[in-house]
Amino acid sequence: LATVRAEALQALASEAFVACGVPGADAQVAARVLVLADLFGVHTHGVGRIESYCERIEGGGINARPAIRVEHVAPAIVRVDGNDALGPLVGMRALNEAMALARQSGVGIALTHRSNHFGAVGPYNFLAAEAGFASVICSNSTTTIAPTGGREARVGNSPIGFGVPHPGGRPIILDMAVSVVARAKIRDALQRGDASPPTWATDANGEPTTDPRQALDGFLQPIGGYKGYGLALFVDLFAGLLSGAAYLTHVQSWQDAPAQPQNLGHFFLLFDVHRLGPASWLEERIDDFCSIVRSTPRADPERAILLPGELEMEQYDRQIRDGIALEDAVLAKLEALAAQSTSSRRG
Amino acid sequence: LATVRAEALQALASEAFVACGVPGADAQVAARVLVLADLFGVHTHGVGRIESYCERIEGGGINARPAIRVEHVAPAIVRVDGNDALGPLVGMRALNEAMALARQSGVGIALTHRSNHFGAVGPYNFLAAEAGFASVICSNSTTTIAPTGGREARVGNSPIGFGVPHPGGRPIILDMAVSVVARAKIRDALQRGDASPPTWATDANGEPTTDPRQALDGFLQPIGGYKGYGLALFVDLFAGLLSGAAYLTHVQSWQDAPAQPQNLGHFFLLFDVHRLGPASWLEERIDDFCSIVRSTPRADPERAILLPGELEMEQYDRQIRDGIALEDAVLAKLEALAAQSTSSRRG
Repeated sequence: LATVRAEALQALASEAFVACGVPGADAQVAARVLVLADLFGVHTHGVGRIESYCERIEGGGINARPAIRVEHVAPAIVRVDGNDALGPLVGMRALNEAMALARQSGVGIALTHRSNHFGAVGPYNFLAAEAGFASVICSNSTTTIAPTGGREARVGNSPIGFGVPHPGGRPIILDMAVSVVARAKIRDALQRGDASPPTWATDANGEPTTDPRQALDGFLQPIGGYKGYGLALFVDLFAGLLSGAAYLTHVQSWQDAPAQPQNLGHFFLLFDVHRLGPASWLEERIDDFCSIVRSTPRADPERAILLPGELEMEQYDRQIRDGIALEDAVLAKLEALAAQSTSSRRG
Repeated sequence: LATVRAEALQALASEAFVACGVPGADAQVAARVLVLADLFGVHTHGVGRIESYCERIEGGGINARPAIRVEHVAPAIVRVDGNDALGPLVGMRALNEAMALARQSGVGIALTHRSNHFGAVGPYNFLAAEAGFASVICSNSTTTIAPTGGREARVGNSPIGFGVPHPGGRPIILDMAVSVVARAKIRDALQRGDASPPTWATDANGEPTTDPRQALDGFLQPIGGYKGYGLALFVDLFAGLLSGAAYLTHVQSWQDAPAQPQNLGHFFLLFDVHRLGPASWLEERIDDFCSIVRSTPRADPERAILLPGELEMEQYDRQIRDGIALEDAVLAKLEALAAQSTSSRRG
């Protein structure tokens, strides 16, 4: 593992985007979302993604020089047309627009279409919370989940994030996808030669399986069966259908169609907690809330009771202080990308 | 089973509330929420609850003659003080206030405190959708869920409802609690002498169990483990903590403290889909969305792929046409309640 300071990683990630043809200011914004994911320890959605973003720029599926447009459709709702830009760039624009609305009206919604994979959802909830806004943010995604009782993927394993500011402390953030586990956990079980629990995935025929090989050929199961399936549909209704984006099987595959814009949709809802009471009122209540949760008698004395996002917030504080731990290969790739000039890369 | 027409049940339920001291207009409003649940076939949250509501009125935990107050804290946010009224009455007031805000600003939030059990959440999503609003609605509740890794209930098995209007058809509605199953399912397993899946509940020590007896002494498990636990916390943060209501263990138990106001909180978020495009645009997209889901190849050819709330909407149409099927005992109890005069009951 290499250790890189957050500012250095931000600069390097921005350079990599610039080398792919992204204007400098846009590169900074997009890099920020990914570096935040790395700061939280969510490296699956960190700067390691830049390579695939750049491949999509080269393939034509992502527009490196977009004109993002914002349309005010109601006093507290905007629609954001991402013009097929980098997802994190569109996401940050939507976040800022929703903040502006929420400052004015108390609440703001930004419905976003013509976007792409926007990274993890937690960084947006975090930035909203640090600015004083509670938030619900979600994005649709390529289909990987089969409807309950089905044997074909028709809805995405879409991320939903919730955030609440904590004056005087770190925000509470829940960043989750709707599946019980990520595919990586099934791959781990396969490598170890273990069975996978029947709640993790179905086989290709839609039947729950404990064979990780069959599970990988099948479909991830949503949390709580039809409940998680319903949540996945509502993410797609709010973020995809209502925003004017593609939805369900209309979403273009990131991998299989690199030249096609995905037309992903995002949903940003922010509301201003300062309208509800003074910061001291909120601080006292959230401190109390956290201490009620943390003082729960433990099933295992060695295992602490955690609040959502608590580990990520600890990682954030530690890595801001000590630097970000990154795999050497990720760092090397990023340095190689940044070293390329646009012309040689395009040439 | 008895069959009662919706209008007749509405009248009878209102009379029962009036006999408990609720003013006539308020009784009509509260009855409507419960009759809607019966129309959806959700009888656990229908008129059968009126008896326990009336007991709480007599006990003093519910205020039969409240002065509900609405405070405008931002152009698109109100705070509703339920004054310990019947929950469905407070819920309907919050719903109407959020609608008024959403008509004006596109979005509206009603944060509600000093309320009580407000029935099922689906009826509110349904009424919002029929009026043209997408919605996210939730309420906190008495603690029954243990935090992940804990062995004491610290958060409620709280309901969350999502709704989207469907011009030309019935709305799509997801009304769910955060537990994998309701306790009733575990009781059924016990009666049948079956084991209960380890994902349903933990024993009293917080360890997953397949013994339904131990499960009933323990805690319902939330969907997806820490994910559902996180959702439950966020329902309580939004509906309880931010609204100014009680939260977590501060919520008074419905059963154990009949004389204590619960100080429950609700969260109503509505947004106006008419701002996003013409009804024909939405109708076309939702029709397409539903047909993509329904046409998924089936794991079991006999089992149709359903959309959230589809069975409830079918029940609604059938029972509006043919009358509501109610257990005889529920109907008899309601008739007995309605027949009592306030004075004799109070005397």
